[in-house]
Amino acid sequence: MPNWENNVRKAVPYTPGEQPKIRDLIKLNTNENPYPPAPGVLDALRGLDGDSVRRYPDPASSALTEAIAKHCGVKAENVFAGVGSDDVLAMSFLTFFASGRPILFPDITYSFYDVWAQLFRIPFETQKLDGDFRIVNRDYYRENGGIIFPNPNAPTGVLKDLPEVRDILEHNRDVVVIVDEAYIDFARDEASVNEHPPKTSALSLIGEFDNLLVVQTFSKSRSMAGMRIGYAVGSGKLIRYLNDAKYSFNSYTMNQAAIAAGCAALEDEAYFTDCTAKIIRTRERIKKELSLLGFTFQDSAANFLFVTHAGISARKLFAALRSENILVRYFDKPRIDNYLRITIGTDDEMDKLVEFCKRYVEDAMA
Amino acid sequence: MPNWENNVRKAVPYTPGEQPKIRDLIKLNTNENPYPPAPGVLDALRGLDGDSVRRYPDPASSALTEAIAKHCGVKAENVFAGVGSDDVLAMSFLTFFASGRPILFPDITYSFYDVWAQLFRIPFETQKLDGDFRIVNRDYYRENGGIIFPNPNAPTGVLKDLPEVRDILEHNRDVVVIVDEAYIDFARDEASVNEHPPKTSALSLIGEFDNLLVVQTFSKSRSMAGMRIGYAVGSGKLIRYLNDAKYSFNSYTMNQAAIAAGCAALEDEAYFTDCTAKIIRTRERIKKELSLLGFTFQDSAANFLFVTHAGISARKLFAALRSENILVRYFDKPRIDNYLRITIGTDDEMDKLVEFCKRYVEDAMA
Repeated sequence: MPNWENNVRKAVPYTPGEQPKIRDLIKLNTNENPYPPAPGVLDALRGLDGDSVRRYPDPASSALTEAIAKHCGVKAENVFAGVGSDDVLAMSFLTFFASGRPILFPDITYSFYDVWAQLFRIPFETQKLDGDFRIVNRDYYRENGGIIFPNPNAPTGVLKDLPEVRDILEHNRDVVVIVDEAYIDFARDEASVNEHPPKTSALSLIGEFDNLLVVQTFSKSRSMAGMRIGYAVGSGKLIRYLNDAKYSFNSYTMNQAAIAAGCAALEDEAYFTDCTAKIIRTRERIKKELSLLGFTFQDSAANFLFVTHAGISARKLFAALRSENILVRYFDKPRIDNYLRITIGTDDEMDKLVEFCKRYVEDAMA
Repeated sequence: MPNWENNVRKAVPYTPGEQPKIRDLIKLNTNENPYPPAPGVLDALRGLDGDSVRRYPDPASSALTEAIAKHCGVKAENVFAGVGSDDVLAMSFLTFFASGRPILFPDITYSFYDVWAQLFRIPFETQKLDGDFRIVNRDYYRENGGIIFPNPNAPTGVLKDLPEVRDILEHNRDVVVIVDEAYIDFARDEASVNEHPPKTSALSLIGEFDNLLVVQTFSKSRSMAGMRIGYAVGSGKLIRYLNDAKYSFNSYTMNQAAIAAGCAALEDEAYFTDCTAKIIRTRERIKKELSLLGFTFQDSAANFLFVTHAGISARKLFAALRSENILVRYFDKPRIDNYLRITIGTDDEMDKLVEFCKRYVEDAMA
């Protein structure tokens, strides 16, 4: 090994879900939205001209942060935009978790948290979910250097209700608490899909807790994973610190295409509401269908289900589904290695999944 | 101050050049290309469909890294793509400068280097340029934790020739050496504009030095600052380390629009050559014109000039130009606070600049 390699920061990277190029693939493995983005999004991309491309974008992405602020019922100074919520969260780890004390997050959660902690040399302690995959509030009462959890949690889909989120905040006023709400738009029933933001979101606590950062994304409910847009909402102070870090890393993170597309998406609430309602309706139907086949799961509030079956190996079902060109996600990790995470696709896609599972379960039980 | 603020990483951010929205502005302050991107770039943006937008992009941006590799005469495994060269450089600082020993770079250089070093707590020592704004090779022979310099240097425009770059590499085999070639496509005369890569580029040394990272960008010579595309070329080992860090930070940095637009740009070499030739021709003409007015400068090999005038205050000229809607860059920093950095625009834009300077100098000398 040449000497220069001794000076290199070695990192164990996150492994993203596969993106294979197979024709007629039913892709239920990365929680993408099965419906296209709002029509105005493609119009916005078509509207980009030579001057937009040749000039640096607005480093503050003001058009986008203002549109997000309006959508969230806050001011632009309360919004930070980034290259997907991963960029926002990575920058938040770097900025807010600098105390040297261990940060806390669940043992079963988004797999990037420990990767970021290791990359930035942030000590961390994971807290065990209970037997129903619930985050136990009292585990987060101890001294710590910061707290992060997704709500609904991933890959479990379990939602913590707002009084419980508030309880964690009340016990942690001296550190930054990040609620990662990538899936929050799905955390409701079909009847309340017109409420923005959803009543389950911690956005309503921003005014009360200046140490609360809520992170959301355009990747799931806005059908825009390909454009890489995430954002954080928090007190003006938190957002200023985050911007200082961003301007110390890369001033121009959001390209002109992302800014234009993001603004266009927020202009079409009717389309957004309609797609979200469809996914929630499909999710509730599929819960019933998979239950009838003997699958069990916690009551998911996200655009995926996290399922297990007493009589079936998840690993084998994963492989069997894959051979039928149905791709779901399997995590070979303690406590969840007999579960599959299944993204909610279109009704047609989900029918094919259920049909295959029905045959598979019948064969296995025969 | 609430206690949580004690845990926050405080950063002193980089200040980007202003992007004011003034009609009829002659914008010569951020080294943007005055010509639009290749026509195929806008076609590629128009060609994006709903599936591209709703799905995660290829995390490896393979289509783009393969196109860049072909352009640079290397393999795809030798290329890393990022959100502008700032993203590539920031990730490189984090990855390669982890020894704890001070890294070395010039005292007058790209203003982001010390910002990244401070953000990541990397010790650094700046080395003084000589009186002609040249990097002094022997200053880089001492023990260090890594080396970075732009070539041509910014904001001076001074090019270090390839034997001198090689000399620095030969004296620094145990650390990573980064040559930041944001402006290298302009580092030649009009006659040699068909050579890819330019003979002045350190790309030709990649095979010989596995600790050499060359960073380039689409922002300047490709007229694509708005799309945020930069890249690094180096040994397979260096690129793997960089990818590990990237996949530990944000797997999906390049959105579908950037990937598509970047690939399209590289398909049109004729357009690229033509625009680059025009800028070089204009630069050489303007050097003569400004010389006649008494301005002095080192022989810039970039798409900007870094000029001073014995009888004129740069600060005052900056303000006078601004009041005429001609925007250039002024750095209020030691040794260069009587200089202006002037981006090479179209011939028409430069004529207006020269005309104003002529009157201004005549008035000042009267």
